[in-house]
Amino acid sequence: MKAEIISIGTELLLGEIVDTNTSFLASQLSVLGIDLYFTSAVGDNPARLQGVLKQAWDRSDIIFTTGGLGPTQDDLTRDAIAALLGEELKVAPQLKQELINFFARRGLEMPASNVRQATLIPSSTALVNPQGTAPGWWVEKEGKIIVSMPGPPGEMQYMWENQVLPRLQKRAGAAILTRMIKTFGTSEAKVDEMLADLTPSPNPTLATYAKLDGIYIRIAAKAETEEEAREMIARREADVRAILGDIIWGVDDDSQEGVAGRMLLEEGLSLAVAESFTGGFLTHMLGTAADSERYFKGGLVAATSEVKIALGLDPNLANSEDKAEVARAMAVLARQKMGATVGIGIEGESGVEPESGMVPGTVFIAIDSEKADLHTVRSYSGRLYQMKRRAAYYALFDLVKLLKE
Amino acid sequence: MKAEIISIGTELLLGEIVDTNTSFLASQLSVLGIDLYFTSAVGDNPARLQGVLKQAWDRSDIIFTTGGLGPTQDDLTRDAIAALLGEELKVAPQLKQELINFFARRGLEMPASNVRQATLIPSSTALVNPQGTAPGWWVEKEGKIIVSMPGPPGEMQYMWENQVLPRLQKRAGAAILTRMIKTFGTSEAKVDEMLADLTPSPNPTLATYAKLDGIYIRIAAKAETEEEAREMIARREADVRAILGDIIWGVDDDSQEGVAGRMLLEEGLSLAVAESFTGGFLTHMLGTAADSERYFKGGLVAATSEVKIALGLDPNLANSEDKAEVARAMAVLARQKMGATVGIGIEGESGVEPESGMVPGTVFIAIDSEKADLHTVRSYSGRLYQMKRRAAYYALFDLVKLLKE
Repeated sequence: MKAEIISIGTELLLGEIVDTNTSFLASQLSVLGIDLYFTSAVGDNPARLQGVLKQAWDRSDIIFTTGGLGPTQDDLTRDAIAALLGEELKVAPQLKQELINFFARRGLEMPASNVRQATLIPSSTALVNPQGTAPGWWVEKEGKIIVSMPGPPGEMQYMWENQVLPRLQKRAGAAILTRMIKTFGTSEAKVDEMLADLTPSPNPTLATYAKLDGIYIRIAAKAETEEEAREMIARREADVRAILGDIIWGVDDDSQEGVAGRMLLEEGLSLAVAESFTGGFLTHMLGTAADSERYFKGGLVAATSEVKIALGLDPNLANSEDKAEVARAMAVLARQKMGATVGIGIEGESGVEPESGMVPGTVFIAIDSEKADLHTVRSYSGRLYQMKRRAAYYALFDLVKLLKE
Repeated sequence: MKAEIISIGTELLLGEIVDTNTSFLASQLSVLGIDLYFTSAVGDNPARLQGVLKQAWDRSDIIFTTGGLGPTQDDLTRDAIAALLGEELKVAPQLKQELINFFARRGLEMPASNVRQATLIPSSTALVNPQGTAPGWWVEKEGKIIVSMPGPPGEMQYMWENQVLPRLQKRAGAAILTRMIKTFGTSEAKVDEMLADLTPSPNPTLATYAKLDGIYIRIAAKAETEEEAREMIARREADVRAILGDIIWGVDDDSQEGVAGRMLLEEGLSLAVAESFTGGFLTHMLGTAADSERYFKGGLVAATSEVKIALGLDPNLANSEDKAEVARAMAVLARQKMGATVGIGIEGESGVEPESGMVPGTVFIAIDSEKADLHTVRSYSGRLYQMKRRAAYYALFDLVKLLKE
């Protein structure tokens, strides 16, 4: 099935917003095994919109549009599809009533112009939109499909997941499930190499993605029933886990700080941080994580040795050339000062030509706790500007690994 | 002049990356007064790429492409343009030498496949790319133009600013300059209303953009000479400043933390922070800002009253119901503890139904310094999840305002 995505709205052509809908839909279509050959954006101009739609209708089997479903004269998607198919727009009484109810729930009267959003053509059915006023359209004619969704990403994604995806899966007569496995500390090339025996499989498929917090591996399985697809995923996940082992830190919607927090809570532990090299990146990740008030005590961020000493670090240690020792002392300080059961200290070498002879971008991560087996210092190196952000991820990854042991 | 943008690369159609190049180019073209009618993305497939190029050639005056200029067999932009224009690709000796030099500077031999990047057709000239190995192409034929740039956003933007934009301006026989004025603490609707008398002007034009760190106003002026355009901008900027006054905190590439840091350095001041509500957001912004080690001492991030007390806050103040007083005490603590001349304290009400009767999302910002006139506490309110990030911007905005006084 050849697919095409059309984003509609003059704001896209003025560069006022970045079109994230297209990449969202593209990644979903690739999971569904639907081939996406073209994407395009077009402004709120009747002739050009109709031109783009006509071309897509001629060369593709299924067309996804986003945007242009609002209540104003500039919202032309419905009119353009009606013109393309030579059909007439009519107000659907039920849709109109739903819109009136939507406004009534907010204590408002429906503006007259919104009735445009309650129109259909004979070939279209409405896709409900509980997130906004614009219903979507599912159009079928001459063996082709047009799916029109609203432009705001939240509304579009909700409609996709609840209305469009189930219809596509039903049509395909197949259940398609995915699972994202998240790793850290290994390059994409190395992960690809490790999984080389599994990747040629056409079903389930494997694909890797490089993200700031590591390499992700997506498993996608297609089967006749959901149960069967779930079993295929589970078996392939077991294969992947057997190969990748403890570089895996999470799945699907997991974040590193979320996984670390869950494990700390399960063990009844709490966490405090002292950092310098990373300038508050780790403290900020933990301090703004959901529910982190249940395990995160706080963070000390010190730019200089003087500040470290003022915050309680032994002056001999603060000025030590052994940065691993400084990191360890900071972990101990954070834990003791803030009354946490686990402390993390991060130090780093940021000089461009450090006297120490160390590689700039070398980072030292220490984890300290009452349990002796949680006491460890590691060092990593990389390009300076990247390491400052990645060091926080390394620290969380180390913590998760240690908590697992 | 009718323009069109084509993004090239199968990764775009798999949803692996979001195409930010298109929105960058779109916003630049809108400043230049070049009408962008279509944008599209196409994969690394010769027939489909040629089809999209042919269509663009037929309907547009100038085509911008990004991507597909790499050294592999999948990089098809050069071949597709050559085929479109019926011209032959030939290796340009000078480009080849530059590539050899590029690799030599890194102690490497040029891989044989990279010679593809040194090819030209008779209608194309090379756009140098000091950021990477892929030169761009400027193609002129039959009164039409194709500009091909590399896909990595850093390389593309550098080439745009240094090679493409000057050529376009020269062609237009006009100088076009822009200036971004940055404000904070006022809604976009209110800014639009305040500037209503200035916005109908066709030259210079005004446009507003809502960003996380405030509302931006872009002034764009077109004139015969650069000097004239510069004067038009200066006059319009003066008008805007007269109307908006002290809600303006910066221009062009300024960041709030950068502006605050510059002012602190000029006054010979240093800064320390203590925060709870904002979970480290302000500390992280300052701690990771360029050159911040010259004025930023560090931050204390405390999740609970107990931690505040452990870090040195008076127990009576830490538990006070008067959060403005707590914020003030935290500002004093940060300043004194870390030996800074200015301290910022941030407290907030994050309870969903706070006993205090305050609106959730109310934030208290205190700034303390040796100069009595820098001692102030303000409070703001807003939706909780937004306020946690905006509170850090409010604090910096307050700091900048106070330093100006």
